Amino acid sequence: MLADLKRRVLEANLELQRAKLVICTWGNVSGIDREKGLIVIKPSGVPYEELTVEKMVVVDTGGRVVEGDFKPSTDTPTHLELYKHFPEIGGVAHTHSPWATAWAQACQAIPCFGTTHADYCYGEIPCTRRLTAAEIGEDYEANTGRVIVETLQGRDCMDFPGVLVASHAPFTWGKDPEKAVENSLVLEEIAKIAFMTKMIAEETPAIGQELLDRHFLRKHGKGAYYGQGK
Amino acid sequence: MLADLKRRVLEANLELQRAKLVICTWGNVSGIDREKGLIVIKPSGVPYEELTVEKMVVVDTGGRVVEGDFKPSTDTPTHLELYKHFPEIGGVAHTHSPWATAWAQACQAIPCFGTTHADYCYGEIPCTRRLTAAEIGEDYEANTGRVIVETLQGRDCMDFPGVLVASHAPFTWGKDPEKAVENSLVLEEIAKIAFMTKMIAEETPAIGQELLDRHFLRKHGKGAYYGQGK
Amino acid sequence: MLADLKRRVLEANLELQRAKLVICTWGNVSGIDREKGLIVIKPSGVPYEELTVEKMVVVDTGGRVVEGDFKPSTDTPTHLELYKHFPEIGGVAHTHSPWATAWAQACQAIPCFGTTHADYCYGEIPCTRRLTAAEIGEDYEANTGRVIVETLQGRDCMDFPGVLVASHAPFTWGKDPEKAVENSLVLEEIAKIAFMTKMIAEETPAIGQELLDRHFLRKHGKGAYYGQGK
Amino acid sequence: MLADLKRRVLEANLELQRAKLVICTWGNVSGIDREKGLIVIKPSGVPYEELTVEKMVVVDTGGRVVEGDFKPSTDTPTHLELYKHFPEIGGVAHTHSPWATAWAQACQAIPCFGTTHADYCYGEIPCTRRLTAAEIGEDYEANTGRVIVETLQGRDCMDFPGVLVASHAPFTWGKDPEKAVENSLVLEEIAKIAFMTKMIAEETPAIGQELLDRHFLRKHGKGAYYGQGK
Repeated sequence: MLADLKRRVLEANLELQRAKLVICTWGNVSGIDREKGLIVIKPSGVPYEELTVEKMVVVDTGGRVVEGDFKPSTDTPTHLELYKHFPEIGGVAHTHSPWATAWAQACQAIPCFGTTHADYCYGEIPCTRRLTAAEIGEDYEANTGRVIVETLQGRDCMDFPGVLVASHAPFTWGKDPEKAVENSLVLEEIAKIAFMTKMIAEETPAIGQELLDRHFLRKHGKGAYYGQGK
Repeated sequence: MLADLKRRVLEANLELQRAKLVICTWGNVSGIDREKGLIVIKPSGVPYEELTVEKMVVVDTGGRVVEGDFKPSTDTPTHLELYKHFPEIGGVAHTHSPWATAWAQACQAIPCFGTTHADYCYGEIPCTRRLTAAEIGEDYEANTGRVIVETLQGRDCMDFPGVLVASHAPFTWGKDPEKAVENSLVLEEIAKIAFMTKMIAEETPAIGQELLDRHFLRKHGKGAYYGQGK
Repeated sequence: MLADLKRRVLEANLELQRAKLVICTWGNVSGIDREKGLIVIKPSGVPYEELTVEKMVVVDTGGRVVEGDFKPSTDTPTHLELYKHFPEIGGVAHTHSPWATAWAQACQAIPCFGTTHADYCYGEIPCTRRLTAAEIGEDYEANTGRVIVETLQGRDCMDFPGVLVASHAPFTWGKDPEKAVENSLVLEEIAKIAFMTKMIAEETPAIGQELLDRHFLRKHGKGAYYGQGK
Repeated sequence: MLADLKRRVLEANLELQRAKLVICTWGNVSGIDREKGLIVIKPSGVPYEELTVEKMVVVDTGGRVVEGDFKPSTDTPTHLELYKHFPEIGGVAHTHSPWATAWAQACQAIPCFGTTHADYCYGEIPCTRRLTAAEIGEDYEANTGRVIVETLQGRDCMDFPGVLVASHAPFTWGKDPEKAVENSLVLEEIAKIAFMTKMIAEETPAIGQELLDRHFLRKHGKGAYYGQGK
């Protein structure tokens, strides 16, 4: 069942470790088959070294395990909320990569200080509000997904590689699991460079709208001229 | 004698180097056989490249060498104090990993800024008081262990991956030597992210009790739901 | 056509990745054959893992593709401006390496704080002014090259390993593509050390003229005595 | 001639690169045969990848090349001054490793903030005064050595792994070339941890005399009890 998606989700999870975005059993990646309404996700707490295609877990959009001998990632309800509200996305990744996590812990959005950022994100990378005690007490992981969706309300999710969850860490997404992981890597690099920029000059302003448009739109949308086209 | 524990302690020591938590001959790991009351520990000042199962040193709880041709780590008395007062632990690790050591040198506890930290530690990672001149002058290494024990007085040692020793560096522990080393790695990552968080926003508060409970308790204790269960 | 230059430009591009100066498809290197008036450059948006000699693109000094099945790097017009105005250079490299990019995002020149810097750059590493909305709106990539040239007006381009483009990232150059890449690596190291220097002592002054002369001139120009001579 | 010393000096130079203390052709290591009064040193500006035993250069204590087809490192006169005034040392290393170089560029000694430092250095790691214009203008490299010697006047050079040269970078030494390189590595780690300590708490005081004595003296001198003894 979903043999190809399982293989891709496995590889995407392993890439988190190869790219040094995670240590221990931290982080997880999932992918969705929109036609079948099924999600493949990493099992909870299994070391990356022991992951195999067979250990991948298949859940439906309600979170019920459809196939697999393992419990799915504890963060599964967060992934499900994102798939429900962002119909364009095909993959979700979660890490505690250090630079992005530091901005999340500081509960600050990452300002768009330059073209490296503008190439991937149409403006600042938002940080959610903190969850309330009630949201933490009950249905915590799903509420994490809901606050991400709330943060992007009225905006196009594809204009953002992901979002920082306050006091927690980043979630990223993309058209497929591979792109979700690439966005985790890029977000980490952007977070690192933004940190250094702020240290060099605390008052650095965000880049102007023209430069933001130029860089974001040369890679995304109808007028894009970066890359080799389709 | 203790062939399996020696092999595990050797591997745990080598893991310190592979995980880039130590350079030169810095750091050491031990493991205890509670039934026999014997501890296996790294020999003092031997390069990691030259460590073998045969070079591991066996000492009793009083620090007397029971087996081995080498002198045990100079930090052995610190390990022994921890084993004496923390009956739940089966392994101890010591490194001078840079981020954790920086917090120790600054004589500051690491505040719990986010869920990465809360997943492993039930509150801030404490820093001991500085030792007095008398404690340094006589029985220094045992006093290092005693001040760690003093710092956790009235608290459950298993709620903490380890402690920072003021002006010195971290000591970590766990149910076995492997877990003690994992906690060294995790503490280093937490220390790094906390440093960056503080640089981004000096006044970042610690996370609230609800989020701390949610994350620590979903991985530890009776109500834990992270991982695959027993 | 230009088989040797293509091979060298390919290798120089791959070196960007090996030296960890780029992630994903970021960055690009070109080389020029001055006699033929032809430039070899990386194709746009192709992963480093898939680059081959055959995929290198040959353009003339006006930017027309002379050979190759791929679109050249979107930054090609920037490279062409540099080749036009700096007749001594034979290679150009562009990265978003994090430390140099942070200085560029902060819109600050890198002060010459020490001999590491003075060995490669005759004074501070300049940062361009920000482009105007008009310059961004039309002919953006060529204008990026023009503002670099404007920044070095009245100075010898060979006294500098490259320049920071404000809100963007570094461009470096050299007598050939290999030297352009080496200068990217060196600029990144200089940017890193300058960042740390500034953090340790905000008010560190630039080094004096005598030390700058001594170090720059012992490696460059007629009186050079570093290395093995010709 | 000096086949064994040449081999050891070659390996010590290569270790600089393996330990990531140098990039490009930066850095150099030498070793001395005190009986013969001859020094083996790295040739100037030769890439590490191309170094061989045959390319090592032998000079006498006056700096004259006694054997070898290459010019010796431009820093040779600095090494010679150190060998002349510090009769206990058998090897000298020079790098531009980033953290140590940052302290040197900031013209600040590295305070002894903890036991990691105290294990290797009996107090702060000193930074020289800046050279005068006259000292830079004439006999620059020898004067670099002289200002190091001046900085340690009245102190035992073996109490220090090395010194920071203001606006420049570190020089380290030891009983042989291997120890000189180990001290470069240790100095870099100490510099990194001290930087972070200062960032966490600007006003961190140096450790007390008792802790300094305890750690330095348990590894050095007659009462040492670290390691396996002779």
